[in-house]
Amino acid sequence: MRRIVVLGSTGSIGRQTLDIVRAFPDEFDVVALAAGNNVELLLEQVAEFQPRYIWCNSPPVPLPKGTAMMSMEEMAVLPGVDQVMVALMGAVGLSPTLEALKSGKQVALSNKEPIVMAGAALKAAEAEHGGVILPVDSEPSAIWQCLQGEDNHIRRLMITASGGPFRRTPLEDLESVTPEQALQHPTWRMGDKITIDSATLMNKAFEVIESHWLFSVPWEDIAVVVHPQSTIHSMVEFDDGSVKAQMGPPSMRLPIQYALFYPQRFANAEIPRLDIGVPWSLDFEPLEPERFPCFDLAVSAGQMGGTAPTVLSAADEVAVAAFLQGKIGFTGIYRVVEQVLTEHDVQSHPDLDAITAADQWASARASEIAGLPAN
Amino acid sequence: MRRIVVLGSTGSIGRQTLDIVRAFPDEFDVVALAAGNNVELLLEQVAEFQPRYIWCNSPPVPLPKGTAMMSMEEMAVLPGVDQVMVALMGAVGLSPTLEALKSGKQVALSNKEPIVMAGAALKAAEAEHGGVILPVDSEPSAIWQCLQGEDNHIRRLMITASGGPFRRTPLEDLESVTPEQALQHPTWRMGDKITIDSATLMNKAFEVIESHWLFSVPWEDIAVVVHPQSTIHSMVEFDDGSVKAQMGPPSMRLPIQYALFYPQRFANAEIPRLDIGVPWSLDFEPLEPERFPCFDLAVSAGQMGGTAPTVLSAADEVAVAAFLQGKIGFTGIYRVVEQVLTEHDVQSHPDLDAITAADQWASARASEIAGLPAN
Repeated sequence: MRRIVVLGSTGSIGRQTLDIVRAFPDEFDVVALAAGNNVELLLEQVAEFQPRYIWCNSPPVPLPKGTAMMSMEEMAVLPGVDQVMVALMGAVGLSPTLEALKSGKQVALSNKEPIVMAGAALKAAEAEHGGVILPVDSEPSAIWQCLQGEDNHIRRLMITASGGPFRRTPLEDLESVTPEQALQHPTWRMGDKITIDSATLMNKAFEVIESHWLFSVPWEDIAVVVHPQSTIHSMVEFDDGSVKAQMGPPSMRLPIQYALFYPQRFANAEIPRLDIGVPWSLDFEPLEPERFPCFDLAVSAGQMGGTAPTVLSAADEVAVAAFLQGKIGFTGIYRVVEQVLTEHDVQSHPDLDAITAADQWASARASEIAGLPAN
Repeated sequence: MRRIVVLGSTGSIGRQTLDIVRAFPDEFDVVALAAGNNVELLLEQVAEFQPRYIWCNSPPVPLPKGTAMMSMEEMAVLPGVDQVMVALMGAVGLSPTLEALKSGKQVALSNKEPIVMAGAALKAAEAEHGGVILPVDSEPSAIWQCLQGEDNHIRRLMITASGGPFRRTPLEDLESVTPEQALQHPTWRMGDKITIDSATLMNKAFEVIESHWLFSVPWEDIAVVVHPQSTIHSMVEFDDGSVKAQMGPPSMRLPIQYALFYPQRFANAEIPRLDIGVPWSLDFEPLEPERFPCFDLAVSAGQMGGTAPTVLSAADEVAVAAFLQGKIGFTGIYRVVEQVLTEHDVQSHPDLDAITAADQWASARASEIAGLPAN
């Protein structure tokens, strides 16, 4: 019986996590659930999974019987809990992730921003306290799976990218694409923020940063390959030239379930299977840098390190919100993030306070530039 | 320092094995080399690698200084030898493979026929004496690599097949294709026998039989997928739907080196790398059974077991030779093998004598049908 906490239980990854719990009812004890504003769904989840602790932005009145309110940071360190699923959106995931690692827990991390913002700090917490990050994101999960049983040097990671909805859009039309168009991802159904990040390829740069930290691979050994079908989720090349790829139809259920049951694999009818009964193709092409300027910008911030990726992540979070609210155009996302990064004085080896300060400064500055009210 | 014996040192796999030894001169001690009739090349190899024992069909006069003649069965059990590379062609590999396993050695097996002829006997010898078969064939090596670190049930093996030179040839033209055409493999450069077996897809059925024995996978869970580029060398699907693939440009050096250094991987400039700097595609399609009748015939013989796959292998060896000598047409290969299998009374659980007898009977009968002089 795995005792788990799900932070972000009403979001896309949180709901799919609970689908897996539902599919294996004897395997899990859901100790705590945290959501943001979707109180109605949270209450349904509470009725079904009977957690002892809950969190949401506005507490339900009355509290469901047998539950108590608890902050996400407290949930993250609950004694007896084996695994904390961090399926939050944005910077809010950092603090509970860090707390969980400091208390030596397994953290199934779907939320990219904490590791982008504070990769060095999370890895240091892992090393010091014995906690461990298990990637839930599809591409890092693919790399993680390919590395199982390989005690060999990694020559190159090849992270695949669908290229998003604008892979073939004329460059001059990108300025005027709408949020509705940008939200139509060709292969993945995900939350709004990550879908927009996928259209700009900011998300792919986040995965480069994530993989750098998770797998200790130098920046120059991490490549991105555009692969429109999203069937191969990523590849690892070893020193002898052998490449391992992990593949399957796009579905987040597989990486979620892999992290929950690691290293075991169980059949689950809700995870789609590769269909080899018909002709199929996998296509690959190099990334076009001029089409996806956010990619190089973000990888550079990752390489720069210190507070640069914190500022990158915070500015992007605001810029995407501004785009979705119609305050800026699609190409404005790049301009906002680029300007905030340019204005920032990078601090090397920041502690958590410095990371938080950089995050707040960047959010405020990006809001100003993008014409959003400050948080 | 690995002490190795190379059986079949002047063939394609044997020469590439010695290329790897040459690339890592401090890692190997070549104790013995065995060849067939290419005495000239064997003598060059002896001068370079200084083995103590040699074998060839007609002994060189005088013997190179410091060497003695020794049978392949004796080489296979030499004390102090760590690994025996069996890179022979056809049934001749069975007896040294079995001897090496019985003396508890690692056998790097590139030669498919021993395991096709006597899979059950080889696995029994492995289990009883602690020897182990390391696959050198590209597809089983890919599966083996994908299984590293996976202590999980295999749902399905997907062995890839290039489809050979006649994947798009009109069916009515297959009768009249020439040995020259059949020897033009689109992706792999290999010996003549295996190249013809690849054109009939007999070779792919042999890999199904090989994989059934090597990885203990039920017949119904082994699929073959046509993949003309031969970039993905095979795939494994696990219970959770996750598929791992091993890939790289077609080259036998990788699986040879992987078996020699298992489980370590080392850089070798002679192993080609995947080029991701240009657009590339991987295509897959189901097998056409009417185009490749040898495939179903051979898998059925494998499933039947006992002496059936022994007879299959022996009849095929003769039929391919008859085709290469112009005695029968390309589609005659199927007819010869099918007739010999039909005439054979299958013996279950054969011992080595029964396997040898079935092999000899099938060779003689196939020679008769194909109009070749009996051996």
